[in-house]
Amino acid sequence: RCPVSGARPSHSLPSRYRRDAAAPSRRRAQVGTAPSGVPADPGAAPPSPPGRCQLRSPRRLPPLPLPRRGCSRLPPGSPAAGGRRGAAPVLAALLGLGAVLAYGERRRRGAQAAQATPVPRYPLYTREEVGRHRSPQDRIWVTHGTEVFDVTDFVELHPGGADKVLLAAGGALEPFWALYAVHSQPHVLELLREYKVGELSPEEALPAPDATQDPFAGDPPRHPGLRVNSQKPFNAEPPAELLAERFLTPNELFFTRNHLPVPAVDPGSYRLRVEGPGGQALSLSLSELRSRFPKHEVTATLQCAGNRRAEMSRVRPVKGLAWDIGAISTARWGGVRLRDVLLDAGFGEEREGEWHVCFEGLDADAAGATYGASIPYGRAVSPAADVLLAYEMNGEELPRDHGFPLRVVVPGVVGARSVKWLQRVAVSPAESPSHWQRNDYKGFSPCVDWDTVDYTTAPAIQELPVQSAITHPRPGAAVPEGELTVKGYAWSGGGREVVRVDVSLDGGRTWRVARLTGERPVPGRAWAWALWELQAPVTAGAELEIVCKAVDSSYNVQPDTVAPIWNLRGVLSNAWHRVHVTVSR
Amino acid sequence: RCPVSGARPSHSLPSRYRRDAAAPSRRRAQVGTAPSGVPADPGAAPPSPPGRCQLRSPRRLPPLPLPRRGCSRLPPGSPAAGGRRGAAPVLAALLGLGAVLAYGERRRRGAQAAQATPVPRYPLYTREEVGRHRSPQDRIWVTHGTEVFDVTDFVELHPGGADKVLLAAGGALEPFWALYAVHSQPHVLELLREYKVGELSPEEALPAPDATQDPFAGDPPRHPGLRVNSQKPFNAEPPAELLAERFLTPNELFFTRNHLPVPAVDPGSYRLRVEGPGGQALSLSLSELRSRFPKHEVTATLQCAGNRRAEMSRVRPVKGLAWDIGAISTARWGGVRLRDVLLDAGFGEEREGEWHVCFEGLDADAAGATYGASIPYGRAVSPAADVLLAYEMNGEELPRDHGFPLRVVVPGVVGARSVKWLQRVAVSPAESPSHWQRNDYKGFSPCVDWDTVDYTTAPAIQELPVQSAITHPRPGAAVPEGELTVKGYAWSGGGREVVRVDVSLDGGRTWRVARLTGERPVPGRAWAWALWELQAPVTAGAELEIVCKAVDSSYNVQPDTVAPIWNLRGVLSNAWHRVHVTVSR
Repeated sequence: RCPVSGARPSHSLPSRYRRDAAAPSRRRAQVGTAPSGVPADPGAAPPSPPGRCQLRSPRRLPPLPLPRRGCSRLPPGSPAAGGRRGAAPVLAALLGLGAVLAYGERRRRGAQAAQATPVPRYPLYTREEVGRHRSPQDRIWVTHGTEVFDVTDFVELHPGGADKVLLAAGGALEPFWALYAVHSQPHVLELLREYKVGELSPEEALPAPDATQDPFAGDPPRHPGLRVNSQKPFNAEPPAELLAERFLTPNELFFTRNHLPVPAVDPGSYRLRVEGPGGQALSLSLSELRSRFPKHEVTATLQCAGNRRAEMSRVRPVKGLAWDIGAISTARWGGVRLRDVLLDAGFGEEREGEWHVCFEGLDADAAGATYGASIPYGRAVSPAADVLLAYEMNGEELPRDHGFPLRVVVPGVVGARSVKWLQRVAVSPAESPSHWQRNDYKGFSPCVDWDTVDYTTAPAIQELPVQSAITHPRPGAAVPEGELTVKGYAWSGGGREVVRVDVSLDGGRTWRVARLTGERPVPGRAWAWALWELQAPVTAGAELEIVCKAVDSSYNVQPDTVAPIWNLRGVLSNAWHRVHVTVSR
Repeated sequence: RCPVSGARPSHSLPSRYRRDAAAPSRRRAQVGTAPSGVPADPGAAPPSPPGRCQLRSPRRLPPLPLPRRGCSRLPPGSPAAGGRRGAAPVLAALLGLGAVLAYGERRRRGAQAAQATPVPRYPLYTREEVGRHRSPQDRIWVTHGTEVFDVTDFVELHPGGADKVLLAAGGALEPFWALYAVHSQPHVLELLREYKVGELSPEEALPAPDATQDPFAGDPPRHPGLRVNSQKPFNAEPPAELLAERFLTPNELFFTRNHLPVPAVDPGSYRLRVEGPGGQALSLSLSELRSRFPKHEVTATLQCAGNRRAEMSRVRPVKGLAWDIGAISTARWGGVRLRDVLLDAGFGEEREGEWHVCFEGLDADAAGATYGASIPYGRAVSPAADVLLAYEMNGEELPRDHGFPLRVVVPGVVGARSVKWLQRVAVSPAESPSHWQRNDYKGFSPCVDWDTVDYTTAPAIQELPVQSAITHPRPGAAVPEGELTVKGYAWSGGGREVVRVDVSLDGGRTWRVARLTGERPVPGRAWAWALWELQAPVTAGAELEIVCKAVDSSYNVQPDTVAPIWNLRGVLSNAWHRVHVTVSR
């Protein structure tokens, strides 16, 4: 990624993390708005005196107007400084390992390590005070356990990228470290300690739970990394910086689309009602579901109909949550096939005429009206369609925000049909009478407005069209000259595989073909997204309009522009994704 | 369609065919480049004297620089003139009937009627001489039987539209009349006689068949209305004017995509070889196919991968036949399900792993290499995919150009997989080794050229993307002010129904929703196109850029422009279709 010539050190640390004399000029060549137009030349770099200050200097962000801080924050000869000397090779070795999710145990281990460290006298801060330090200008502070760290100078050294550290700015590191197992190493904590600037006040505690009659008071806690579009009901997406970092989205970061408060379900007394063809009904406990039907697992991407609505609103305002590019996520779902349950309830492989399988959730509004949706019967019973009643998400029981204890997962279909907190399944000659089936989640012509819309004239969205977006770099970024890496995701509905992603750096005049990563799916059952990336040389001073467009196995493509697919509800926003960046030296 | 106020006559003849005093000024208001900027005012029209000349004058094309011809071509008081007086109401009554195919019997009846007419002395012409009269400037001549007619003055009066008559200019009417049953009325022939100007020379005969060693010498005769893109092999499309006139394309006009000479097959000795799973093979005669398997009928559109390639070539030249918008047609196919044949041969509903059903045609090149293609096994055996081995097309046995005696019809899939003159079916773990499966009919990025193309990097086209085109008006047309009717077709692959067609008259800035015609298909099995039309008021002097774009049931849409989907083979050309017209008074 970084244009460095010459032999690499034996520990294979990427040169941007090496703490030799040349490092400062190299990093300057990559970062922001460095004033010098001269490329870094390691051979020409003046020799620097050895010692802590020499080690520390590369960690400053040269182009930003930061108050110059000395090396005096850590007592000379503190053990942390020695620890840091060995940390970079360790981090480097970890870089290639790939990330593995780490939950409770590792979190505990980290906390224990923190408490085992001798505590010097540090100033005390409240969480609110920490929260004011979220940018290089204000310094970037984070907490770990009860400790407070100023990591401003570390940001650019972060092996996973500066943008990832910034997601935690002003708050706790633990929720992010829990997602990225590379952090659960003693060396990482030792490295962090070097940046310690304070302690949390002992009286600092989590805010008391809201004891009012707020129907959302019982909603679960959420990961602080989520970008919240609406608190009540809770709607949030993973930040673009993390969206395509993993093929499977961590449960904590999976986009959340709630229409109503999250129901509190007692798994012991929970029953799923499945209404059979003759008026009889099955009533299934969770253990009956697990024991009576074979477990089936499917890796599937879910996407909200409103993903990328924010771009549509920029053409003309639309009604709906201002989703950026993150109302899409991928998980490995485990559960039972809806097909198996329907056949067990007495339904057959085929039904004459038009039939629908209707789902009803436990989530309800103040009047008791529940969320509902339906899918065509043919999809529900097709063995190839892989429709699940899922009780697992990425190997764990369903999180509350994602439908605990049981949800529908309809691969290849708009997320709105994958009803969460499922309480009832019924087969009907008509679609679900739910508002969200009949009067929402439909696509209309750009000429239809709220005065003229007739919901009966458009079909309920089921399969979604081909989609893609750029997750890196971010809009407005200054990217370093040299080799630019563009990354993103691509997906299509109906099990249609993404067969190609074209990327343009000049607004669509010329194109290159991105490299798709991940496994080749079973043809016709490509339920999961493809991640992709492209490397291309870029020249300092250039303004790039990066564009991506995907092609699926039916050779459908994305439309060039947003305005012609604009619709009053802002759904189905799948025009080329465009990101403007500048190239710095 | 035409902006006329006031009461309509009781026979419901559209005003443009009414022969009252106001007609001339009204029609002038609709046609071409009339110099007057003043709207026609029927009330202000001067009274015309009664008689033949008054009847004839409205039939002239006012804006064209034609030599003025008198009314003297027909002897005064000839019976034809009287016949014409009553013809317009009859035609008008026929207009609303809808068209029914008329073949042999009607053609014979027309010929008998022609011969029953007393023959006055007329000049004699060769077919070549007739063929020189194909435009209003050169006069428009046609033949019927052995008679020659100058129909220049009738063109604008033709109830089916002037464009339809022009298709027969310089040649015989019979092939067109055979397709449109409204012509098989004695009044039509009487009307035509009024325009008689000559007879064909008695020595005129059809050209002798080519007796050389030309491998294409055995190709069947074709309909003269087809727009020929290549004679050898024969590749032709129906003219846009007729393309969307009928939901089912007449067999004679169905687009023809031959890769090789048409094989001459003796239906008595014909056998289909179906290679079973254990090495055994079925050998089925036509009568065995018909008797052993139930007949199954499917209405399906076939589209060539190269449809609308001409538009792509205008961006940058591509390799391939310059298809306009007509490499797409629709028929009612009758035959047996491929599924039934495969199961009978010993195959099962599912096969572990990736399998393909390979088809081999009887059409072969000089070296004996045959045309071949394959489809995924899952589609071949799916009862919902409706894959046929067809022996009937629109209720008739397959025409030779369309695969007589047996062809594959794969609904929702590129035409190239619907192998004609089928001789062999085999199931294989690999796709057909055919050039047309492995090294053609694939889509590539615009950045791939003939130096860099690697055919293994793209999947063989199977399902096609959503498509639509405008069949009326034609590019460059001058359309009359008032109410403009825009017509076209829309279709999508994979059984995805067309749910909406948007039409713009201003290049895509604003949109209207077209009216879809035809039956609502079974969801997921929308194998046939939708025809559509839109009426919109247009103002004299306007330049219109008419655009259409379709949306299918997966809410996939067509891309805005051609360049970003350009590919070296010019396939998958499905950008918005654009037609420029001017509005005249």
